[in-house]
Amino acid sequence: MDAFLACDWGTTNLRAWVVGADGKVTAKREFPLGVAKLAPGEAERRFKDEVRPALNAGDLPAILCGMIGSALGWTVVPYVDCPADLATLAKGLFRADDQSRIVPGLRGPGLGGFDVMRGEETQLFGWLALDPARNAGRHIVCHPGTHAKWALVEDGRVVRFVTAMTGELFDVLSRHGVLKSDAPPDDAAAFLTGVDAAGEGGELSARLFTARTRVVAGDLPARSATSYLSGLLIGSEIASLPRLLDVQRGETIALLGDETLCGWYAQALSHKGWRAETYDGDAAALAGLYALEQGGGA
Amino acid sequence: MDAFLACDWGTTNLRAWVVGADGKVTAKREFPLGVAKLAPGEAERRFKDEVRPALNAGDLPAILCGMIGSALGWTVVPYVDCPADLATLAKGLFRADDQSRIVPGLRGPGLGGFDVMRGEETQLFGWLALDPARNAGRHIVCHPGTHAKWALVEDGRVVRFVTAMTGELFDVLSRHGVLKSDAPPDDAAAFLTGVDAAGEGGELSARLFTARTRVVAGDLPARSATSYLSGLLIGSEIASLPRLLDVQRGETIALLGDETLCGWYAQALSHKGWRAETYDGDAAALAGLYALEQGGGA
Repeated sequence: MDAFLACDWGTTNLRAWVVGADGKVTAKREFPLGVAKLAPGEAERRFKDEVRPALNAGDLPAILCGMIGSALGWTVVPYVDCPADLATLAKGLFRADDQSRIVPGLRGPGLGGFDVMRGEETQLFGWLALDPARNAGRHIVCHPGTHAKWALVEDGRVVRFVTAMTGELFDVLSRHGVLKSDAPPDDAAAFLTGVDAAGEGGELSARLFTARTRVVAGDLPARSATSYLSGLLIGSEIASLPRLLDVQRGETIALLGDETLCGWYAQALSHKGWRAETYDGDAAALAGLYALEQGGGA
Repeated sequence: MDAFLACDWGTTNLRAWVVGADGKVTAKREFPLGVAKLAPGEAERRFKDEVRPALNAGDLPAILCGMIGSALGWTVVPYVDCPADLATLAKGLFRADDQSRIVPGLRGPGLGGFDVMRGEETQLFGWLALDPARNAGRHIVCHPGTHAKWALVEDGRVVRFVTAMTGELFDVLSRHGVLKSDAPPDDAAAFLTGVDAAGEGGELSARLFTARTRVVAGDLPARSATSYLSGLLIGSEIASLPRLLDVQRGETIALLGDETLCGWYAQALSHKGWRAETYDGDAAALAGLYALEQGGGA
């Protein structure tokens, strides 16, 4: 293998690594170039004029995953349909220019139609590649975040997945409206009270109001209301899981992503009788890009 | 009865009516003086210096309902506990000054503690007073809005009620984040598709993402996504109703409030097998204030 440039280019940031011929990372850098901030045509230009030079990447072959393959990014890359394994994904790599290929997102059957992801598939297949034993049997993989993804993986193939807007609900409710608060979600006890208050995951619009009434009644300190809200939303998502993916309480969930957020999910899962294991999302993304550069096993 | 000044003073507006000795409205006026916009102490001063003079109300006795009785308003009026009838509410009228009394809010058993309302109770008892036959038997009354209230009324008493933050969810999601849109919610077909997509009212965080994926898939025009979102949220609230208030599909719901919003609720209810009757919220508020001025039947 030659050296290559690996990029996870999402909505808010671009993370880039130069990977040497021996597979070791020789340089890495993060750029505030999330596709949400870019004008049409800007991604390609800034990648060539800023990102490659900043990493002395010259004209190294590059593989890019994430929202860079969407209408907001460099160019729209067609989705690959589930069920899909790493080789299927590698076949869908899209040549954006002579040196750069973009990883396709995944599309699968979802609630009321198709569900889609762009970027999480690369983390997911990277997580599988990090331990080849994972390519056998069944796994449930969760990527917490603004739009959390829950995927069912069987024998190395993503069978289907579902997206929950839990992170976005938390963002908009904690920034606007009656539950607005500057307090960080750092009260573990209030968080777990929220997880319990989620019940079986229904009646969310009514349950959310309890984040207000508990404060009014003096049962919840105002500065803990954000933690309670976070627990209520994540608890509601977890309680919905058996209906969303036909999985049973007690199964092990692999959490891929930001350490702090994965930590809250792990607490909520454990509290509700699931088993959770947390893995670093960046390392998984890098491993996925490396596996794709190697040809995806095809 | 002497003439009096009736006020429904909420978070965003103050609606005031001068009611003559014969019960007829002789003047009415709306002021942009919602309590959310007022500094501490400001409500009392502006009521005396602006509202009374603007209506030539001099020192007429006044009855005020709504958030004016909260910490954001004139003074904090203690809640009256459910079950409560009009006479109980009248006993809780709070004298704010020599000429002005404030209607207490209601407090009742809710999800995970107490639920509360301020203002809707006056509409609700006004609606009962507008047709004395309503004081017998069982009614389910819904006040759609930012924080929708659903109340169970038996023989003229509010037994209990529950709040759903559906309107607030719609506001924050349609103004911020991935579902943001300037399109008005005016597509009735997309609205009903959303009502159906709500399922049994669970998994809301996941179902919300379908407002995005349906547009991406080309199944829903982008300009109809707001209507779909509205239907999904209201549909989820309605589907949760049997679990929230132990009521059965097919019962009649009395909708009190804004005509347009009540119209959407009526469509969703009818679509899901309920019966809905819509009543004007302002007329109900005025009737409630009038009934309280008359002593609440006590």
